[in-house]
Amino acid sequence: MSPRTPRIGAWFIGARGSVATTATVGTLALRAGLAPSDGCVTELPPVAAAGLPALTGIVTGGHEIGEGSLPKRAEELAAGGVFPVALARALCAELAEADARIRPGTAPGGETQRAAARRIQDDLTAFRDRHGLDEVVVVDVSSTEPPAAETPELTSLDRLEEALDRGESPLPASSLYAYAAFRAGCPVVAFTPSPGPALPAVAELARRAGLPWAGSDGKTGETLLKSALAPMFAHRALAVRSWASVNLLGGGDGRTLADPAAAESKLRTKGQGLETILGHPVDGPMHIDYVADLGDWKTAWDHVSFEGFLGTRMSLQFTWNGCDSALAAPLVLDLVRLTARAKQAGRSGPQAPLGFFFKNPAGTEQHDLGEQWRALVDWCAELAAEGTGAPDGSGDGQGHGDGTGAGA
Amino acid sequence: MSPRTPRIGAWFIGARGSVATTATVGTLALRAGLAPSDGCVTELPPVAAAGLPALTGIVTGGHEIGEGSLPKRAEELAAGGVFPVALARALCAELAEADARIRPGTAPGGETQRAAARRIQDDLTAFRDRHGLDEVVVVDVSSTEPPAAETPELTSLDRLEEALDRGESPLPASSLYAYAAFRAGCPVVAFTPSPGPALPAVAELARRAGLPWAGSDGKTGETLLKSALAPMFAHRALAVRSWASVNLLGGGDGRTLADPAAAESKLRTKGQGLETILGHPVDGPMHIDYVADLGDWKTAWDHVSFEGFLGTRMSLQFTWNGCDSALAAPLVLDLVRLTARAKQAGRSGPQAPLGFFFKNPAGTEQHDLGEQWRALVDWCAELAAEGTGAPDGSGDGQGHGDGTGAGA
Amino acid sequence: MSPRTPRIGAWFIGARGSVATTATVGTLALRAGLAPSDGCVTELPPVAAAGLPALTGIVTGGHEIGEGSLPKRAEELAAGGVFPVALARALCAELAEADARIRPGTAPGGETQRAAARRIQDDLTAFRDRHGLDEVVVVDVSSTEPPAAETPELTSLDRLEEALDRGESPLPASSLYAYAAFRAGCPVVAFTPSPGPALPAVAELARRAGLPWAGSDGKTGETLLKSALAPMFAHRALAVRSWASVNLLGGGDGRTLADPAAAESKLRTKGQGLETILGHPVDGPMHIDYVADLGDWKTAWDHVSFEGFLGTRMSLQFTWNGCDSALAAPLVLDLVRLTARAKQAGRSGPQAPLGFFFKNPAGTEQHDLGEQWRALVDWCAELAAEGTGAPDGSGDGQGHGDGTGAGA
Amino acid sequence: MSPRTPRIGAWFIGARGSVATTATVGTLALRAGLAPSDGCVTELPPVAAAGLPALTGIVTGGHEIGEGSLPKRAEELAAGGVFPVALARALCAELAEADARIRPGTAPGGETQRAAARRIQDDLTAFRDRHGLDEVVVVDVSSTEPPAAETPELTSLDRLEEALDRGESPLPASSLYAYAAFRAGCPVVAFTPSPGPALPAVAELARRAGLPWAGSDGKTGETLLKSALAPMFAHRALAVRSWASVNLLGGGDGRTLADPAAAESKLRTKGQGLETILGHPVDGPMHIDYVADLGDWKTAWDHVSFEGFLGTRMSLQFTWNGCDSALAAPLVLDLVRLTARAKQAGRSGPQAPLGFFFKNPAGTEQHDLGEQWRALVDWCAELAAEGTGAPDGSGDGQGHGDGTGAGA
Repeated sequence: MSPRTPRIGAWFIGARGSVATTATVGTLALRAGLAPSDGCVTELPPVAAAGLPALTGIVTGGHEIGEGSLPKRAEELAAGGVFPVALARALCAELAEADARIRPGTAPGGETQRAAARRIQDDLTAFRDRHGLDEVVVVDVSSTEPPAAETPELTSLDRLEEALDRGESPLPASSLYAYAAFRAGCPVVAFTPSPGPALPAVAELARRAGLPWAGSDGKTGETLLKSALAPMFAHRALAVRSWASVNLLGGGDGRTLADPAAAESKLRTKGQGLETILGHPVDGPMHIDYVADLGDWKTAWDHVSFEGFLGTRMSLQFTWNGCDSALAAPLVLDLVRLTARAKQAGRSGPQAPLGFFFKNPAGTEQHDLGEQWRALVDWCAELAAEGTGAPDGSGDGQGHGDGTGAGA
Repeated sequence: MSPRTPRIGAWFIGARGSVATTATVGTLALRAGLAPSDGCVTELPPVAAAGLPALTGIVTGGHEIGEGSLPKRAEELAAGGVFPVALARALCAELAEADARIRPGTAPGGETQRAAARRIQDDLTAFRDRHGLDEVVVVDVSSTEPPAAETPELTSLDRLEEALDRGESPLPASSLYAYAAFRAGCPVVAFTPSPGPALPAVAELARRAGLPWAGSDGKTGETLLKSALAPMFAHRALAVRSWASVNLLGGGDGRTLADPAAAESKLRTKGQGLETILGHPVDGPMHIDYVADLGDWKTAWDHVSFEGFLGTRMSLQFTWNGCDSALAAPLVLDLVRLTARAKQAGRSGPQAPLGFFFKNPAGTEQHDLGEQWRALVDWCAELAAEGTGAPDGSGDGQGHGDGTGAGA
Repeated sequence: MSPRTPRIGAWFIGARGSVATTATVGTLALRAGLAPSDGCVTELPPVAAAGLPALTGIVTGGHEIGEGSLPKRAEELAAGGVFPVALARALCAELAEADARIRPGTAPGGETQRAAARRIQDDLTAFRDRHGLDEVVVVDVSSTEPPAAETPELTSLDRLEEALDRGESPLPASSLYAYAAFRAGCPVVAFTPSPGPALPAVAELARRAGLPWAGSDGKTGETLLKSALAPMFAHRALAVRSWASVNLLGGGDGRTLADPAAAESKLRTKGQGLETILGHPVDGPMHIDYVADLGDWKTAWDHVSFEGFLGTRMSLQFTWNGCDSALAAPLVLDLVRLTARAKQAGRSGPQAPLGFFFKNPAGTEQHDLGEQWRALVDWCAELAAEGTGAPDGSGDGQGHGDGTGAGA
Repeated sequence: MSPRTPRIGAWFIGARGSVATTATVGTLALRAGLAPSDGCVTELPPVAAAGLPALTGIVTGGHEIGEGSLPKRAEELAAGGVFPVALARALCAELAEADARIRPGTAPGGETQRAAARRIQDDLTAFRDRHGLDEVVVVDVSSTEPPAAETPELTSLDRLEEALDRGESPLPASSLYAYAAFRAGCPVVAFTPSPGPALPAVAELARRAGLPWAGSDGKTGETLLKSALAPMFAHRALAVRSWASVNLLGGGDGRTLADPAAAESKLRTKGQGLETILGHPVDGPMHIDYVADLGDWKTAWDHVSFEGFLGTRMSLQFTWNGCDSALAAPLVLDLVRLTARAKQAGRSGPQAPLGFFFKNPAGTEQHDLGEQWRALVDWCAELAAEGTGAPDGSGDGQGHGDGTGAGA
């Protein structure tokens, strides 16, 4: 469609975490022709129709505060059944190369947030320049943070800038990265429930800079099922009386969520969709339990009690046995392509049509998976009609720098 | 909306079966204010918007070849947990009255099909006249028949008429009732997988007579879930590798389906939706097992094995514990209202927008529950825009007699 | 076997609770020939062999602090599906009669525990005398109490007596009832996890008085399954890596356990059996959740992850859908018969062979259900060999009064 | 305990099948210290007490009619998740060595059964001699055969010998191997439901030769669970009304069982235990379905409907997700050790105390897993009391040769 395929970069916050590692393995495997694109929504014809940058052209990089290396992490994930051992071995050299593109993340206390933001911004610009990328999308796949208290400097961009100028560090880490990303002209994908770009001051920056973002909290497992099943009850006029949810998970995500403060963010985003779809509050516990021996796998059990005609009580229960990283990784790549495309098409702010991917969709209250799918497909058709938006070597590509400068 | 609420009749083929009995108890309970309308899709605002005849105004009747009585059957169903015992008792007198509106069905061999058709037609006309009904909808909720061989006289209305004139009896019972219903100017709802109005010769009659019909095989349990879940896999690009289904059910329906010939009809309609939604054939057994002790309840277990990104194998399983009669009865009442409305609005032939209710939707290949819901809602909005179509005391009511006369 | 069948009384603490009501309905239904003895272990030949008092001869009574009446409670339970509505109606008169045998329980603050104990004792004696009972067994089926702090006066009978003499009220309610029961010469069954007769000072009284007791916490659902399944893993050398348990329950029991303090008692008794059988600690959450709409029913889901040969990971999950009252009631009647028999045979103290019935078996560490069954059967064979022990009109019947007087 | 550890051989019929390959990998891994003995019952203290030949000393060999090689098969199984890929690689050389000990099996038509039996016998003797083995146990882990018709020559050893002398080939393959094994003085383990040593004429040979055998049909998955759970229902007097079983399995075993004739053998052995334990027939379907994509894994779903006190209906369902080969392989090694020990202790004929391992236990009607465990432990204690029975270098080893000659 375009004279040349735009080259895009995926910059992961949490670049050696399970999701980023799996996504990185995935881009390399796809490029090497070692794996099909199963799980990638953007390869389905009605989505691909939007005219997206190539899946095989994605270059990965990112920030990471932890130790380790991508080849090592890939080996561990393969041993845990996330992808074949043979794949990790075959891609060892490429993974080492990708690992060299990872920069140290920012940890609290080491530097002021103003300094940290500049450093992050520089890392992003350097990444874009070195690899000749048309767009760089910043994706937060780091550990979940507790909900943020909304202090005045977090609710207005001007006040935030003043606070940063005073050497203060008011931002939660996820929002600091989002701030720096927008300053660097990059779209942002908030794949965790952390505040990130949704923090009012940061969201304001995106708006002023004319940059799109998507979030939050990837909908990969039990909540995905809820959003597919709840409309069935609603449209069949079956009265849901209780809906109990249990999530058993190991891995790093499980460990983080064993901390009640972090779990609170997660439980908030998990809970709201159901009641929105059903139109009334629903009784029933929701548990997230860390069970170390499950590794990167998650087993979720849901029990739904409902009432039909003449008060008859019935029930549905399901057990989902999924690998969160394997479910999340292709969606992350989808979102990189879609937000890059959104930017090229001039969209800014939270992208409601990408709600299909999230537990807590920014910019919309729609949680019904079928409706979300339709909104996504409609949006892709719209983009298709507008033209590919592929960079012509000037304009778009240069544009973001200026755009983000708006509020600086 | 209209000067007076149109009065409609629901005429059940299999009028003392579990579904018809539950539907009859339901209309009486709703009229008496003893039960809410849970489970009735037509009470949801976007469907009610079509301007439907009142749920509480439905008068029931029907044909039945079995013994027994509605009060007795209601007592049995209540003992089996289909609805409260107190309800069956409170409505005993009204049920006895309803039972008096049931006429003997036609059994093979007793009379020619020409004679049987006339008798059925007379029963329908008498029912309409006696109760001053604006419309009578014929609903097949009798036992499932084996698939019909397509002989020449079943594929053309003219040939069928000739055969009937010759004293032959070529029609499967379900189609004989549908034939007679159309002759009497009644819309038809095929709630079982039996051939009924879908038989080409009979469908031709509906078309010529300008009468609407809906079918076939009510989507009440496991297939309903499939049609809600399969789109999730498709839209998330998750490759379904196998889908195994087991249905344990007792009751009359279970007993009928223990006969492999009858089960074949059922398995055909149950199987096709999944492959249509996923776009490819899917491995896995599908069982329907008669387990006497389950009574009117059905337990279905489905196991789905699927593959995500980089070939990771995952699984979903669900167990559905439902009461088929309680799930089917409100849908039957919904379809009576909707087809009556369709007729008043001048619709004829198979009503694709009613596919939402069926395993084997007539007139459409759409099996995705979300899309079916939208098609239903759109159709209701269309009808709303056209006006209520409530009978003005002439026209419509007289019309069908003439219409059905077309091929006579 | 004996000249006359001994007549026994079952005295319930919590006499209008779900379990006591169901047990009362049960004795009446059995006596009237309206129900079979399904669920009664003591009707199985190897247990019946012990020579037990007749199931149909049990007279019920009890203490209760709540309002209501047995006929009303039975109606509610029947509406919730615990037993047939018809049964509750048929036994209405007998239930009203049984209700008249219920006495006000003791609530904290109203009287000293010395006075309360005397009143309870008097109630028990009056019950025995009025109905000419050979034995009265006191069964605690009241709400679960939090664990008791072990103060000095609770660990020695002498100190306890001194405290009571001083007008103090140191006993948890369950132990007060057990104290009074032993004083009245009655065996005690602790069907809840409350301290009851297991409190050292009270257990000492039982020993001194030569009275048997059984406890604690009836094993009716998920824990029952654990004790049947865990030995399978142990004996097949399969290494259990995690065992997650979720219990969803409504009803009064669910409401009580929604209180974390009360739940602690329950979780303690639920947890210990598994580790004892497997021989090592096991990871995994254990939840008890109150879900109001489930009424008297409980749904438990367990997920077991285990490792076999060469480290292969496998899993088992089960869902138990049971009615706790219906499961508990026959066991309560079994225990009344068995402890009455134990007393007649001169047994005293905690009865280890009755561990089969309990989550936290008194007097033994054996949790393996198969081994518990064998211990029960062996004990019954022993009792059978000793002779029926049926009262000959003198001796035994008179004996308890004296026996219990030991510490008075 | 003995001056030297006896060396034993495991000779697999179906030596490159999934179970034999996994067992072979297992012996090599254990010897190399690369895996723990999880899943090996004979390593549990009360069983090990019998004084068994060392697990690490087992030498494997066998007959096989298929192509392939053990290193290749091991790689396939590792890819399917049966054991770690690293293990298959680490043991590649040893597996190639083990593969060299496999001899061509006998296929119908190629030679007379008399000739085939001699050849098999020679293979067994050569294996024993070459590796200096004290005992060789023949284990049938080949594909399931249909049930055998009981012709006269299969019911009497004398008639069988005459038929073989006449050049006839009346034996099913599994029984031919068992016949030859007994002739060679080897104990036999029938791990499949095929007739094998249970055929009357062959069982007679074992008796005359004074040789022990064990069978049949290893109890590894769903039936194992049934035998652990059914006693719970029986001992709690809960009336099981229906028990439905569904087994989804891929792999070679699944393919074989997709053939209804072979499945019949399996369904027979699977069904009988339940009714024996419960003491009455039980309604409910039992399905074995081949689902290719499940590979070496099996998913079984069971649904149990039962009735408690006062007719309350309750249910239990479980899902078992197991790897049949990983479950079977250690049991095969256990049985090799135990039958070798049985022979040394002079036991002959079907070994009832080994019923713990089988769906269709030879020599006993006991299916209750707990009782089977106790019988096994008691037997091991008995053997322990008798002394180790370790070969003293003469006697025993020679003895069977003569014994088996009895009918020759």
